Amino acid sequence: MGMGEALDLVSAATTTSKIEEVTVERYCVPLEEILVDTGHGEHSHFELILCHIRSSEGVEGIGYTYTGGAGGAAIASMIEADIAPRLAGLPCCQIEKIWSKLQGELHYVGRGGVLSFAISAVDIALWDIRCRREDVPLSTLLGKQRDKTACYVGFIDLTHTAERSHKAVAEKLEQGFTAFKTKVGASDLLHDARRVSRMRDLIGDERKLMIDANYSYTPAQAIRFAQSVEHLDIHWFEEPISPDEFERYGEIADQTSIPLAMGENLHLIEEFQRALRYSKLSYLQPDASNIGGITGWLKVADLAAQAGLKVCSHGMHELHVSLLAAQPHAGMLEVHSFPIDQYTRTPLKLQDGQALVPTTIGVGVDFDLEKLAPHLVYRS
Amino acid sequence: MGMGEALDLVSAATTTSKIEEVTVERYCVPLEEILVDTGHGEHSHFELILCHIRSSEGVEGIGYTYTGGAGGAAIASMIEADIAPRLAGLPCCQIEKIWSKLQGELHYVGRGGVLSFAISAVDIALWDIRCRREDVPLSTLLGKQRDKTACYVGFIDLTHTAERSHKAVAEKLEQGFTAFKTKVGASDLLHDARRVSRMRDLIGDERKLMIDANYSYTPAQAIRFAQSVEHLDIHWFEEPISPDEFERYGEIADQTSIPLAMGENLHLIEEFQRALRYSKLSYLQPDASNIGGITGWLKVADLAAQAGLKVCSHGMHELHVSLLAAQPHAGMLEVHSFPIDQYTRTPLKLQDGQALVPTTIGVGVDFDLEKLAPHLVYRS
Repeated sequence: MGMGEALDLVSAATTTSKIEEVTVERYCVPLEEILVDTGHGEHSHFELILCHIRSSEGVEGIGYTYTGGAGGAAIASMIEADIAPRLAGLPCCQIEKIWSKLQGELHYVGRGGVLSFAISAVDIALWDIRCRREDVPLSTLLGKQRDKTACYVGFIDLTHTAERSHKAVAEKLEQGFTAFKTKVGASDLLHDARRVSRMRDLIGDERKLMIDANYSYTPAQAIRFAQSVEHLDIHWFEEPISPDEFERYGEIADQTSIPLAMGENLHLIEEFQRALRYSKLSYLQPDASNIGGITGWLKVADLAAQAGLKVCSHGMHELHVSLLAAQPHAGMLEVHSFPIDQYTRTPLKLQDGQALVPTTIGVGVDFDLEKLAPHLVYRS
Repeated sequence: MGMGEALDLVSAATTTSKIEEVTVERYCVPLEEILVDTGHGEHSHFELILCHIRSSEGVEGIGYTYTGGAGGAAIASMIEADIAPRLAGLPCCQIEKIWSKLQGELHYVGRGGVLSFAISAVDIALWDIRCRREDVPLSTLLGKQRDKTACYVGFIDLTHTAERSHKAVAEKLEQGFTAFKTKVGASDLLHDARRVSRMRDLIGDERKLMIDANYSYTPAQAIRFAQSVEHLDIHWFEEPISPDEFERYGEIADQTSIPLAMGENLHLIEEFQRALRYSKLSYLQPDASNIGGITGWLKVADLAAQAGLKVCSHGMHELHVSLLAAQPHAGMLEVHSFPIDQYTRTPLKLQDGQALVPTTIGVGVDFDLEKLAPHLVYRS
């Protein structure tokens, strides 16, 4: 049976399955310690917004998005008040059509921001339903290339003391990680450079090291800082400056040998197109929680392929692991410091320093609702 | 007393006034008839989100934003859950600092979208308090240049029959209007051209005529259409294509003599900067309800002045009339089809075809809460 026939079967099978109910929950989940970066400040907890969609056949999908602690109430409201009524009765498996419909009808309050987060949660739930109806894991549906995926630890460690960093790195080395990202962007560039140098010493010369300024430098600072740490073999420099300064990224890229990366703050496909046109990035880092779910993430992965770049990820590693596993041009998975996967029955597993792709049916993120229950703040 | 001393006095007087309470209300206000444009589809009602802020001295300011019918719940949630707690105890009159703080701390779920609408409502409330504390109308505080402002009728009339258009234009001519904007963007370009030609006939040769496609054309269609109606003396062509295609606006401008305009869908100052860099616009149309309130609108007005362009407005004419009155480089005020001012005690007044600037203390938008009451759907 060829691909065309398979798709025909799918579309025939799906015409009878309609969206019957859409509900939403918001959780505020405390972090074990306060995490600090320059752009976003202190994180004491993260928000998790779950979107449950039930089909007319009784299949239930769960999608989600997350925030660094603010905006979750607005995301849940957008789903409840303006998205759910628009979804009722639509065919479950016309995911891309639904994606375009929501972007179009809610454009006036959209073009990114809260709407992109809300559509993401809905989109992931629809993909979950699709996987469950076809009885496959997400990676299989998308054309799995490999069973495990390269990954790195994304520390949120700007205020870590030397001792705290030492302990954190030791713990992650013990777990098998071979690549590490550290925050920079303190007001003192020399202090930043010392921190990066110390991190290189801690992890050793053979492991990959990335840096992330959370858009806190000026272009001049970013160039100066990049040049000052080039000798430390930096794999990429993430968000050196404001994500809105697309052309300035290109100027920084011209002045340093360190490859540039960004994506977590680009919430429209058009923004990634603009970045490809002007910013001379080496790595794209879309986040399925805010680029419009799996549908949006795959669009960016296609853009990366066309540009000959690697696609990476930001945040929600428990989902992105399946997406990266299906991309021939996959870069590294970020294993993020928000432990969303600790609230699932399928936390991320490592093997030989690589992240194992889940084989469970669905998108592979099986939330433990009992464990989340104490953190529930709203249910529609 | 010089300006410096005056500002010193203001800042001395304001240090004691703190934000004490922030509450929000959402109204769904039905329209008399269903209004249709291509980009946004049908409008059966509009949403009005009111933000009340009370200072420690007991001064109350009211700010607001509006939508075409969706997204208001998310805007209200953002104000209630994430903005109000951040405002408590801040000095009322440090408006620009508060604006920057909110943009910065909520950046991850922001960069436009719902957050821009939410900040707008809050910002307008703070300006209202500032005007009331200084016992002046907004236009006076901003340096009024004139007592009335050029304006035009912004029809939302894509599906109007010839008869309906005839009646609507006759009514507005009777009221004294001398400039008119009509919607285009139907699937049939010839039909669009006929509609524009008919509108020119209806209003006569001496009056100004603008067209607005609500970003529904492709660039090729936009060029072809513009060339086909150039002989009708079109004052501007608004949003011919997607607001994200900044460079393509520039290409259209190169191919037609009709000046281009946009702004209602640009919700970040950086987006207006990008439009100035690439889009060859002749008129900027910021909307204080979604560019971050009066503070955001004034930033765009400054950009327009630096670029030698006229600043216009979109929507909420009852507020923009005071803003345009204080700009030396003011273009025309849009008198929008959403009749927000009919729910105030100070509806817009015309004199000799121009809009009169309100002289009431505050931002000049004195809501009639009793008239709005039947349309209340949420109060925090």
